[in-house]
Amino acid sequence: MSLIKIIEILAILVGAFSGFVEARSKQMDVVGVFTVAFITAFGGGTLRDILLDQRPLFWVIHQEYAILIFVLALISAPVIKTLRYIVSERLIVVADALGLGLFSVAGVAAAISAGMPLFIASMMGVITGIFGGVLRDIVCNEIPMVLRDRRPYAICSFVGCWAYLLMQKFGIYPDYSLGACALLITTLRLATWARDMRLG
Amino acid sequence: MSLIKIIEILAILVGAFSGFVEARSKQMDVVGVFTVAFITAFGGGTLRDILLDQRPLFWVIHQEYAILIFVLALISAPVIKTLRYIVSERLIVVADALGLGLFSVAGVAAAISAGMPLFIASMMGVITGIFGGVLRDIVCNEIPMVLRDRRPYAICSFVGCWAYLLMQKFGIYPDYSLGACALLITTLRLATWARDMRLG
Amino acid sequence: MSLIKIIEILAILVGAFSGFVEARSKQMDVVGVFTVAFITAFGGGTLRDILLDQRPLFWVIHQEYAILIFVLALISAPVIKTLRYIVSERLIVVADALGLGLFSVAGVAAAISAGMPLFIASMMGVITGIFGGVLRDIVCNEIPMVLRDRRPYAICSFVGCWAYLLMQKFGIYPDYSLGACALLITTLRLATWARDMRLG
Repeated sequence: MSLIKIIEILAILVGAFSGFVEARSKQMDVVGVFTVAFITAFGGGTLRDILLDQRPLFWVIHQEYAILIFVLALISAPVIKTLRYIVSERLIVVADALGLGLFSVAGVAAAISAGMPLFIASMMGVITGIFGGVLRDIVCNEIPMVLRDRRPYAICSFVGCWAYLLMQKFGIYPDYSLGACALLITTLRLATWARDMRLG
Repeated sequence: MSLIKIIEILAILVGAFSGFVEARSKQMDVVGVFTVAFITAFGGGTLRDILLDQRPLFWVIHQEYAILIFVLALISAPVIKTLRYIVSERLIVVADALGLGLFSVAGVAAAISAGMPLFIASMMGVITGIFGGVLRDIVCNEIPMVLRDRRPYAICSFVGCWAYLLMQKFGIYPDYSLGACALLITTLRLATWARDMRLG
Repeated sequence: MSLIKIIEILAILVGAFSGFVEARSKQMDVVGVFTVAFITAFGGGTLRDILLDQRPLFWVIHQEYAILIFVLALISAPVIKTLRYIVSERLIVVADALGLGLFSVAGVAAAISAGMPLFIASMMGVITGIFGGVLRDIVCNEIPMVLRDRRPYAICSFVGCWAYLLMQKFGIYPDYSLGACALLITTLRLATWARDMRLG
């Protein structure tokens, strides 16, 4: 199994996990838990593919991910209780930053290969990175966290997407750019989080 | 007029009616009443068709349904008042369960004929069955009922969709499977509702 | 630069501006301000194009509009403060009515040229005209203003769209119809607003 595949699965699990926690904190039932987890994990990529008009969707090709989230939702009540003892908040932030990095570069790469202009491609990267969380918050009847929390989040994704676009311009081998920019986004997110930086 | 056509119109009317009631209870004006009724009646099927990339949409082919809801919205204020005297809560639940059954099997059948894998097809069935109500609640600024109410609803649809997939596997004539599974979903919903069963 | 191009840019600016104001009043950060402004300006046209299955999207072809909103979001804090001194509420209502008129006729024209039936085309016009504001309010966690405010808004758009469809039926030159109906919608909105008319 390739490294990118492993990180990809990790990113989806992280997205689903944040959906589990949010849905449980809203007292949702098992259907709600599955739906919110699914939306959080696949919402960004699905919106990107709809905007780019690309089918079949990622989770249609890989139905094993949907099944995985389904099984996790069924056992989520005890799992979340156990995980809360094991998983510290710091670990969640790290995993979430990893997910942001990976989803974002996957988004910008997909947009470029679909022939989008540069600025739009960078927006597609950010959408892929953050929209799962936005949909999760809308379904849970809250103003999306990423839009009101003043900590840099979408902006880290935006910077990393442009770094990728620049690297492509200079002819760097795509796999290297993808890895480097995912790492850049994750690092930016963690660095600004650790220093508690705020936006205006 | 075929039986399926009659049930179909009934399902749309039921969806629209629940939209009328919700929108009026939120003090919306006539535009809001039409919009919420329309979203509730066609939201599930529209999302399914967008995810499957199928056009034209159901309500584009049959614009008479859209016109019907438009006319009903115009006269909804007195209609709802009158209907509230005639229609008991029990009748609404029965009609709604019918709608859930019919929309779900229509969704899973459409997904299969679009070549979706089995688990995804079952999800498309559930989405078609429940998403109208989810959108209605989001527009009305509430956490979707189906995600927090602990009564079985989406799960009845899920079971019925798998029953349909199994029947197709065993080569049963599609029209029989459709009818049987729509009936199964409706019965499951009514039985669990009557016994006041709850999910974890 | 043609007249239609100038009004188009004005309409987008007006949409973005109402997004800026709403996002700032919700204490959103700069990412939230950009996102809400973008959604308000392009949400209606994007939903129409997804429903009609037309690509590339308007803001993908004209990425300069997306960049413009991005730059405005970056400088929005001082801009909004300054504009509040200059811009009276009346001016906002006038500009917004202009936007409603233009977006609506653009929507109905696009739907007709995509071969939609008449009633659906009129709905597509209304969707294009109002949906940006609906999405803005959903993201900001409010019941969409257009659905609960009893002042005529969507209805002005609806009347104007039908006026356009009638004019096309009588073979009037499209550019004249577009201009006349945009003007009609704007005038209707302003007249009903000035007289403080209410819907039932």
